[in-house]
Parts: sequence; structure tokens; C-alpha cells
Amino acid sequence: MTQASRVSLERALLEIDRACQDGAVVRDPDVLEAYAGDESEAPRRRPDALVRASNAREVEAVLAAATKHGVPVTPRGAGTGRVGGAVPSMGGIVLSTESMRSIVDVSDEELVAVVQPGVVTGALHEAVEAEGLFYPPDPNSLGTCTIGGNLACNAGGPRAFKYGVTGDFVLSLEVVTAEGTRLHVGKPTVKGVTGYDLAKLVVGSEGTLGVITQARMRLVPRPEALRTLLVFVPDDETIGRGITGLLRRGIVPRCVELVDSIALELIRTSAGLAIPEGARAMLLVELDGPELLLEREVERTGNAFYDEGALEILTADRGAERERLWGARRELSRTLRKTARFKLSEDVVVPRTRVFDLLRVCRELSARHGVVMPTYGHAGDGNLHVNFLWNDEAQRPDVDRAIRGLFEATIALGGTLSGEHGIGVLKAPYLHLEQSPELIALQKRIKGLFDPAGILNPGKIFDPGHRAHGPC
Amino acid sequence: MTQASRVSLERALLEIDRACQDGAVVRDPDVLEAYAGDESEAPRRRPDALVRASNAREVEAVLAAATKHGVPVTPRGAGTGRVGGAVPSMGGIVLSTESMRSIVDVSDEELVAVVQPGVVTGALHEAVEAEGLFYPPDPNSLGTCTIGGNLACNAGGPRAFKYGVTGDFVLSLEVVTAEGTRLHVGKPTVKGVTGYDLAKLVVGSEGTLGVITQARMRLVPRPEALRTLLVFVPDDETIGRGITGLLRRGIVPRCVELVDSIALELIRTSAGLAIPEGARAMLLVELDGPELLLEREVERTGNAFYDEGALEILTADRGAERERLWGARRELSRTLRKTARFKLSEDVVVPRTRVFDLLRVCRELSARHGVVMPTYGHAGDGNLHVNFLWNDEAQRPDVDRAIRGLFEATIALGGTLSGEHGIGVLKAPYLHLEQSPELIALQKRIKGLFDPAGILNPGKIFDPGHRAHGPC
Repeated sequence: MTQASRVSLERALLEIDRACQDGAVVRDPDVLEAYAGDESEAPRRRPDALVRASNAREVEAVLAAATKHGVPVTPRGAGTGRVGGAVPSMGGIVLSTESMRSIVDVSDEELVAVVQPGVVTGALHEAVEAEGLFYPPDPNSLGTCTIGGNLACNAGGPRAFKYGVTGDFVLSLEVVTAEGTRLHVGKPTVKGVTGYDLAKLVVGSEGTLGVITQARMRLVPRPEALRTLLVFVPDDETIGRGITGLLRRGIVPRCVELVDSIALELIRTSAGLAIPEGARAMLLVELDGPELLLEREVERTGNAFYDEGALEILTADRGAERERLWGARRELSRTLRKTARFKLSEDVVVPRTRVFDLLRVCRELSARHGVVMPTYGHAGDGNLHVNFLWNDEAQRPDVDRAIRGLFEATIALGGTLSGEHGIGVLKAPYLHLEQSPELIALQKRIKGLFDPAGILNPGKIFDPGHRAHGPC
Repeated sequence: MTQASRVSLERALLEIDRACQDGAVVRDPDVLEAYAGDESEAPRRRPDALVRASNAREVEAVLAAATKHGVPVTPRGAGTGRVGGAVPSMGGIVLSTESMRSIVDVSDEELVAVVQPGVVTGALHEAVEAEGLFYPPDPNSLGTCTIGGNLACNAGGPRAFKYGVTGDFVLSLEVVTAEGTRLHVGKPTVKGVTGYDLAKLVVGSEGTLGVITQARMRLVPRPEALRTLLVFVPDDETIGRGITGLLRRGIVPRCVELVDSIALELIRTSAGLAIPEGARAMLLVELDGPELLLEREVERTGNAFYDEGALEILTADRGAERERLWGARRELSRTLRKTARFKLSEDVVVPRTRVFDLLRVCRELSARHGVVMPTYGHAGDGNLHVNFLWNDEAQRPDVDRAIRGLFEATIALGGTLSGEHGIGVLKAPYLHLEQSPELIALQKRIKGLFDPAGILNPGKIFDPGHRAHGPC
């Protein structure tokens, strides 16, 4: 840090300290260390300061001072991101919304929840379900991640197959732009076409356009009942054919989760499942809706997969069984991590019918580069989490080649680089594989309108030069 | 038109004529007259030229030439808009996409349709339903309006209550910006968070940011069955209470359409309905889903409304009956028009629970200003079409006061100026009632990035000075 930038930082923090309540500004290195990284392999960097804002007024003060003095600000939810989006790569201030955790309103008449950004996603689930309502987005980290972070990354989760992702539930946002201007974007109502839809522009912008200080989210009635099926198939082709068979019968499960053959072998013992001989992949299919309908739908779902050659189908009727299956699914990331010294995980999406091709590509890349590549994820949406496991540090260049190969294949198959994690720092070097120079330039100019001094989460999404290094 | 602007126009048209196929550029005044207005009361203006583009390359050529020479371009779908969005208020060129009417692809594996902007919405319905699929958005003008126009206005329709509006079905768009640059915005897949969501920014921007040349739209499986109910209620309070009762039972009909007491009286004879004594409003409620479920859901829907005090509920089991009910609903706008010399229609939205308050406001405004104000529309979404009927030209100032009163009340009730028609020229003078100066300024700057010369649909959304005049 230069002397000039140190002076700027101190001036900004003085103004921020005056505007915020006592204790909001934190300089203790031990505390700051906990804000240096997220749950990705992005290089950690300790921020120069942490500000825990308590309300929108404090967020305004932080951003106005940061813009005035040219100090980088990295907004942060719970730090559960997977691409380094919340890592203060350029130093400066981490602006945490963890203290803004009120559920302001839940209305079963309007089917609406009004929440602050620090509300934990799972806490919102519980609060609305207690009212007979349902908030579908369910990112894997729902026990710790927050709505603010979910909005920044447009988080998804298994239930996106039927219900859509976080952005599909946004009605309006209160958002503070980099100069400290509070805007109300979106509409308070479920319909509205008054001016441009800036709420949808802010969703998924990874904290580069503004800091969300309140969100008005759409809810749906809580589904009456649930059924879970485990489908074992003899080959990858059966996955897509089975899903198509379901859709042709008019069945839209809430989740269609895949565990591929390699991941299946790695969790065979820990999952406590009787995996049939010859199973090359497992699908976790979950249906929700009226009880009256579900018995028939479970049977029709089974038929759809058996017609396409499924080996065996198990149903989980009891809650405990269901929890065990989901437990194994949710633990997959950590379980895989234990099987090798190093692990990286990607989050690509291809059209649903190209999942088979993507899995084939993964096999080829794995063989060519000598990296173990278990794959799982949201097969119904074509959104797969492709993992890279290796034990020898010297293999890293091969891993990088495999990752690049995966991204190139994803684009060639008509897909996109990220389904629900975002671009952050880790995928920024690859953005040009998917988007034209004109499109990237236009987005940078839009960022310039929201953040003329370039202080909001600099180095994220667009700017290369921040490649993934190091082990995890 | 000044001499200089005439020279600019001729130079632009010369370049356009060279780039487009024979006959694309039209100067015949009789033809141009048909492109002077839309289905609103916005003042007509004959364009200086019409270009019927056949493909994206021609759209690029038109916009590049227009930007180069500073000639206004008004993009146009089928001209069914209700706020003057397709009226060439500043003269110049009307760019029609009516010739780009291919349904490029319909996939029942991907649940996707790829369409050109000139495809008529009803034609898309038919094409996808023939494949067992369903495209929910159903604006009232679906027999003539086009997908391009629907995207520009983020059109809704009755089925939005369950399924959402046009923008909720957009995956990706091919769009040409004002300088003639073709961009691919959005994602080919159902999930994706790679960069900013510019597709959602273009949707609803009323042709002010670019011209859509192709759209990839999400579909859903075609619902198995349908049931239609007509609910007559004794007062306006029962409307909201009945809808809340439905939602609390977990029932989400695909439509909940309202016809208020005044509209009901006006159509009493023409609709051919036995309207019970004491009915103060009628709700048209439609359920779709698996046949197995619908019988129960119809009964539960009836119970929900009877519990809240409904007078009488009719069900339409046969297609012909259903068609008759919907025919009456679809013809409402035209039927009302016949009852008075002059008619204006607005399109406000309030939170669902404030529909009662909005109807009360309408009664008060009607009494105060001496204007007949029948109201109908999408009660489930809080999106009401408030009509103003009058016979004496001298009443116009009173009508304008009533309209302003309606908008002010809408905002005060937590609503928005437009649910599905857009702002166009007619509501531009009122935008500041809803949006802050900072928000309006930011949107104008975003427009400046897409359209630096300001040639794309100038005078729409933002610029006042184009008030509604004249009769209809």
C-alpha cells in the first residue's frame, strides 16, 4: 500500500467511524483475518478494515467515503461464495451486512417477505414455512449463507428446477450505489413495467454495482407434500432420456440431482446406500405438490425412468430416510475433499440435453490430464458441479488445462461458465470465452455509471490477472 | 422537418436501401399512414419512412445508418400497444419486424422455443401446444400482437397470476443496439450468472435500448386440464378476502380476473350472463393442472369464496361455455368503448391486498370528476385496467384530473404506474410520481450507453411533453 493510499484509507475510515455506531469499524488483525477469504480457492487477502453496517444509512456513509477517497470496498454476506467474490483482492474495506439480519415482514396475503441482506437463507425458510409459505431457492450452504449474498450471486440450488433461482423471486430492492445514493429498484408488486428493470440488473452483479440493503421477495404457498426417489441408471445416456420422459409426461419434479459414476464410487461407503451392481449414475428426484397427486406422480416418474432403462428405483417416504439421502448429497463437496489433497470445483451449465455430452467431455479430460473428476449437481437444469481432485502439487498445470478444456467444451455445447456461483476472481480470466468484446465493454460501461470511481468490488467479473493459485 | 434533417434522412435511407432487400424501404404515404399510431389515444404521427427488416443484418444496417445520420427510429411490432410506444412521435423511420416471423425451433426436450420478433403470440401458443408444451403469457391482443412487442413491454395477461409475465420466460435475446452492434444477452440455459443480466434490462425497455431480432424463450409442459369458475360477490371487500382464502389453502389459479360493478352493469346485456341480484363484482377464476386434482380444487376454490361471502359460483366445464366467458372478458375493452364517445384506459398495479382500496379510490374519483370509471383486470396480481368514459369533449380536463388522482393514489397504495402496457408517451409525464430524480437520471444514462445518438424511440418513457390529447 502506498503512503497516499494509506492516507486515503485513514481519511475514509475517520468519516465512516463518525457516521456509524460504535464498534462498526474493526481494525483488529485477528478479526480481519476471518474476512480474508471465502469458501473458494481464491487467494486470501486480509482487508485493511472491516465495517459491519447496521442499516442503509451506514452503508451510504461507507460507500460515499470510499468513493470520495478512492478506497476499494468489498461487500460481504456470509463468505460462503465459491469464486472469490467476497475476497478483498485489492485490500481496502470489507463491508459486511451480517448485522442487518431482520426479517422485516412476512405476508401470507401478499405472498411477500421483506428482508435485510444479512438474513440467513435457512432462517428465512423457517420463518415463511411457519406461516404456510415457501421460499424455494436453496443453495447448498443454506444453513449459513445470507440473502444478500444469494442476491449478489443469483444463487440457485436443487429446487431451481421447478421454481427458478433467487432472482426469480425478487420484486424490489433497496440498493446503495458507490457514491452513497440509495435507490429503490424493481417494483413493489408482482407485475410492473415502469422504466428499466434495474433490480434484475443488480441481482447477480456480485457486489460490483451496489450494496443491497433490503429486499422484497416473492413467496409461494408451501407445498402440501413431498416424495423423494433415488434412481440408479446403467449409463449416462439414460439420465437425459429419463428427464425428457418425465417432461413429456408433464411431470416437473422440484429437483433432479445427479451423482455421476465417479462421485458415486467415492461416496459408496460413506453414503450408506445399497448401490446396485452396474449403476453408473444416481439421480435424486424429488416431487412436491398436493398429497392427492403425489402417489400417482411417483409411479409415473418411476415408469418414465424404467421405460428408459433405469436399473433400480428407491423411494423415501419417511422424513428420516429423506434426510439421510439429502445429507449424503449435501456432504458430497466435503466428502470429495477428503479423498484427495487438492480439490477445485466448477459450476458450468449446458442445455439439459447436452448433460451426456458434458459428462463424456469430463471423462476425456480426466483421462488426458490425469485428474480425478467426479461430477454432480442439478442435472435437470444442466448445471453440473465438476470437481477436480489431485494429490501432487506438480499436477496443477494439468488441472488448469483440464479446467480450460471444460470451459471451452461448455461454451461449444451452448452453455455458460457459471450457473449459480458467479464469476468472481476465479472465472474472470475466462469470461471472454463466452462473451464478445462488445458485450464485455458495455457491461464495464454500465458498471462505470453505478461506480464511477471503481471502488465497488474491484477485480471481480471483468478484470483478468487474478487467476486461481494455490491449493485449498 | 428542417432542410438539414431532411438531407440526413435521405442519406440514411439511401444507405439502408442499399443494405436491405428490394421493397424493404417504403415511402408510400398511404402505407405510412397505417404506421402512424397504435391502439392507444397517443397522438398519431406519420413516419417519414417505413423499413420492414427481414433479418438481423438489415436491422443492423438500419440502426447504424440512423445513428450515423441522427435519424429517429421507432421499432414496431404489431402496433397493438396501449401507451403510444410504437408511435413515431419524432418522425423519422418506423422499423417494423413484422416480416421476421419464423418460429426457428421448438424443443420438448429443452422446453425451449426460439422465435423471431414478428411471430404472433397466438401463433406461438398454437405451435408449442401442438408439441405438448405451453407458453403462458397471454396478452389480450394475442391474436395479433407479436413476441417482439411483448418483450418490449414485458407483456402479461391473465395467466401471469400463476406463471409470470413475458420477461419471466426469456432465456436469451439477440439484440441490436443503436449503433448497429449485435449482442447476445442472457443465457442459452435456464440458469446462468455470467456477467450482468442485460436480457432482463432490454425486456420492458420499450424499444429504447435496442431492437430484438431473436428470442430464446422458456416453455413449460402443457397443463393436462382446465376449469373455469365465475364468482359473484356482494361487495369489493370479498374480492381480496376470497383470493387470500385461496392462497391460504395453497391454491394458485392460473387466472383471477375481476369485472367491477360498473363494468358488470355495462356488459350485463351483451355478455349473456345471468348475473345474480346484489352482485357487485364478478371474478373469473381459472384453474389448470392434472385432471385428477382439478375436481377437488374447484370444490376448494368454491368453498374459499363461499366462506368469505360469495353470492353465487358458476362453473364452466365445457369448452364452449368457457369460450363464451372469455369472449365476454376479452371484448370488455371494445364493449366499453361503445358505451361512450370517449374512452381512455389505464393499467395500474397495487399490492393484491389493496385492490379494495384502489376500487374505493376509483369510486371517489368518478364521483368527484363526473367520469364513468368501469374497472376490470388481473385482480390476482393487483393489476387493474381502470377505464375513463365520457361523452362531452369539454370534460377532458376533469378526466385528466381523475387520471392524475388515480396515479397518485396508486403510488400512495404502494403500487406502480404500469403493469403490462409500459410508459410510452402517455405515462411519461407521470414517471416522476413513482421514481426518484436519481433513479430516472441513472436510467437515462444507461440509455445513453446503448444509444449515444438518442435515435432509438426518442420521447418514450422519460421525456415529458407528450401528453395524451385528443379523443379515441
